[in-house]
Amino acid sequence: MKLKKFSSSYYTDRARINPDGTMKVPEHSTNKKSYKRQRRKLTEALLEAQYALRKAKKGPVLVLISGNDEAGKAEAIYGFYNTLDNRYLNTRAFALPQGVEQQMPHLWRYWISLPKPARLGFYLGSWYHQPQIRYCRGEIDLPALRRQMEEIARFERLLTGEGIALVKLWLQVEGPVKPAGRFASGEQTVAMREWGSFSDADYACVQDSFQLISTLTSTEAAPWITVSGDDEHERDIRVGQIVLQRTQQLLEAGPGKMPTASWQPAPLTQLQQLDYDRKLDKARYKERLAHYQARLRELVRHPAFAGRSLLLVFEGTDAAGKGGAIRRISQCLDPRYMRVHGTRAPTSEERHQPYLLRFWKRVPLPGRVAIFDRSYYGRVLVERVEGFCTRREWQRAYDEINDFEAQLQAAGTLVLKFWLAITPEEQLRRFQARAESPLKRHKLSDEDWRNRDQWPQYEQALNDMVERTSTATAPWHVIPAEDKRHARIQTLEIVCTELQNALK
Amino acid sequence: MKLKKFSSSYYTDRARINPDGTMKVPEHSTNKKSYKRQRRKLTEALLEAQYALRKAKKGPVLVLISGNDEAGKAEAIYGFYNTLDNRYLNTRAFALPQGVEQQMPHLWRYWISLPKPARLGFYLGSWYHQPQIRYCRGEIDLPALRRQMEEIARFERLLTGEGIALVKLWLQVEGPVKPAGRFASGEQTVAMREWGSFSDADYACVQDSFQLISTLTSTEAAPWITVSGDDEHERDIRVGQIVLQRTQQLLEAGPGKMPTASWQPAPLTQLQQLDYDRKLDKARYKERLAHYQARLRELVRHPAFAGRSLLLVFEGTDAAGKGGAIRRISQCLDPRYMRVHGTRAPTSEERHQPYLLRFWKRVPLPGRVAIFDRSYYGRVLVERVEGFCTRREWQRAYDEINDFEAQLQAAGTLVLKFWLAITPEEQLRRFQARAESPLKRHKLSDEDWRNRDQWPQYEQALNDMVERTSTATAPWHVIPAEDKRHARIQTLEIVCTELQNALK
Repeated sequence: MKLKKFSSSYYTDRARINPDGTMKVPEHSTNKKSYKRQRRKLTEALLEAQYALRKAKKGPVLVLISGNDEAGKAEAIYGFYNTLDNRYLNTRAFALPQGVEQQMPHLWRYWISLPKPARLGFYLGSWYHQPQIRYCRGEIDLPALRRQMEEIARFERLLTGEGIALVKLWLQVEGPVKPAGRFASGEQTVAMREWGSFSDADYACVQDSFQLISTLTSTEAAPWITVSGDDEHERDIRVGQIVLQRTQQLLEAGPGKMPTASWQPAPLTQLQQLDYDRKLDKARYKERLAHYQARLRELVRHPAFAGRSLLLVFEGTDAAGKGGAIRRISQCLDPRYMRVHGTRAPTSEERHQPYLLRFWKRVPLPGRVAIFDRSYYGRVLVERVEGFCTRREWQRAYDEINDFEAQLQAAGTLVLKFWLAITPEEQLRRFQARAESPLKRHKLSDEDWRNRDQWPQYEQALNDMVERTSTATAPWHVIPAEDKRHARIQTLEIVCTELQNALK
Repeated sequence: MKLKKFSSSYYTDRARINPDGTMKVPEHSTNKKSYKRQRRKLTEALLEAQYALRKAKKGPVLVLISGNDEAGKAEAIYGFYNTLDNRYLNTRAFALPQGVEQQMPHLWRYWISLPKPARLGFYLGSWYHQPQIRYCRGEIDLPALRRQMEEIARFERLLTGEGIALVKLWLQVEGPVKPAGRFASGEQTVAMREWGSFSDADYACVQDSFQLISTLTSTEAAPWITVSGDDEHERDIRVGQIVLQRTQQLLEAGPGKMPTASWQPAPLTQLQQLDYDRKLDKARYKERLAHYQARLRELVRHPAFAGRSLLLVFEGTDAAGKGGAIRRISQCLDPRYMRVHGTRAPTSEERHQPYLLRFWKRVPLPGRVAIFDRSYYGRVLVERVEGFCTRREWQRAYDEINDFEAQLQAAGTLVLKFWLAITPEEQLRRFQARAESPLKRHKLSDEDWRNRDQWPQYEQALNDMVERTSTATAPWHVIPAEDKRHARIQTLEIVCTELQNALK
């Protein structure tokens, strides 16, 4: 739907992004009558925008609220609940990481609780809060803060790239700290303390660290905006205007522009260098299988594994033998602590969320194993080849995936990635065998036959993927799988060796 | 698809349900060759059934595995992982309730972790385990055990009614306890202990309590089946056969039969007895609003509320003023601990799950408030009137809903239910006003106009609902809402009064 233009210009032309990336709304005085009128107009425009967001299935819009102690961070949210449709509002407050959160990547808890599309989400104690508070308390040093800010900047780039709007507000109390909002000071402080306050930290350090954080993480798509918390009414109007502006920008945004960097396809060497003739006879296979399975059973029972986790990614053309290779591994694992996740086309709901979200929801907890039978690499394989995502999206995905895996590794997850490779001729033989076997014919679909026609496109996508996502700590293992026995033993062997190294 | 008949009869005709409701598979001897042949045939049939389940989007099939210590409960699962498609297997082990689980209804953690359709789910430490172990240890007495079994029986009736197949296995070691399966005894015991073993309890008590549990909870749809755990191979074959049989029954089941009990519609008295003329002038409204909102703010900050929770259900015809009444309440609540849930038509994924599941996932945690703007009562309102569910389904739903609310109440949730009632004439006026207001026109859809034509059907459904689900502890509050101010104040007043009583 077309948004009325007046609302956009009327409310937002006073807010401009400064050269340093921050955005500051100029001061102005209000009287009660003009406040009420302004408030009503703003509410109408916000309601309209909230509805348009729902129609367009865009968003969510995430509002991160940081600021000095008692700057009215929670209070700034109430205005939205008073006037907007409460069904599409979602407030989250994150305290110190508890229990399993402490063993998972920093951003995990934020990922798995992302609001659905069309929601307006308010985050108190956002991903900035713990790093800043720990820095102010001297628990982490400047380089550590910088690293965390870089991680956050990549995270936010991903979110905005996936159509999530970010509003990052710093509520600033200029004068001496005073009780704000509708609760008496004492009561409010109790509530605030639950998610961690700066009380013990130095006011100057809070200000300085915010300047640093703002410089490191303000981008065109997600600038930090400072709002004065001194006057409750002015604060509410300004926060409302800023949220409105960002929502309207999101609604007006078309499909992403092409990246300026040129694209260099990888040379087609990955499959050509493979030795497809490697074979194992049945006796040798049985002996090796028993050997490695016994070893794997032992390794996952190693006390050190309780604090680690294992993520196995299996990719490969249809009929490459992924399921069989996976079963030879899952046989060694306690089903209570292991899950095999098939990856199908996203549901209509999942299509409106960041593609990595459903995989973040499935990463293994400490002591557990997750096996992906096809995975997030679908973004740069099937989604690329079939045109299910834009060129910009899949070209961006390589870095996003590397970043995802790096976060898991930093938190103690061993990530192992396997491409099972067969020749087109072998695939044809297996398809024909499947069509004839009562036990396997349901594994063959019309789509499988169609995919065969696009073998060259998949080969290019595979080569690009292996080149761009084989990192030092999570390289691709390209396994010749013409002989199933060989492929199963080689994957098992790699799992055992890598797991043993990781548990040293 | 049509299942080959041979597999059904070939594997299952030896298993018969006994007159006492249990099912016992007769003993028979095997030799290695016939075992292998039997095993292969069984695997083929199970693969076929697993695939058919996926095609039909039926299930899940839940296999609850109980039994003596070291009867091979975990081991009985491995066979399925060795042969079936691992992507559709899902094993859960439930230990002693931890943290927030202790404050929620017993069945909450089982509800929110129900496997998706087409899955074969294995439950170790199922909903039977804690009651039995506590009874054997003398922590609960017989009447308490009986009550919990009755609750479980209702839960299972709901699950099977919603198309979930239940297989309840008791693995029985007849001889002296011996190490079973592939781990040495010591290792296995460590794993078992995590989810609670009977070790300290008396063997006879375990047997007796199982007999009692079996008698209380064996139904035609979900009988207890005893399987000998003495021989590993026989155990695996039998468990496989039983799972196969239940899966095939599920696949062959047509739509449910009509209930035998006759249906008595409620008299149409609910709306007729209302005094639609009750009004509040603006001054009085403002004064009352301020009064009750202040009181509600105070009540939710009462220390006792930290261990309780509040569930508010709002129903009513379109334009009855639900959103406005909700906002007058949500304004008093901390958005961090409150959620307003709109209830829309279920997604295609939700349509294949029990209708109560999405509401179980939204029940409030301790100290929190959940407000449903439309709710699970949709089952007996819109789904009934529009024919989105069968007659059998909505007629069954009244008891299921009463049971749901009773479980919440038993765990400390205050459940308050409001029907906002307006006359058809007032609705028409509001629709017309909405159509003309730029601020409200998006609240009006074609569907709203269509629903008006079915006013009499909705009135009957409303009267049946109020009559059948107004329990002593969770009665319906039918509020005349012709005057919005009156309706808002009356709901606020009821919330305050009931909450105050609950916190006494």
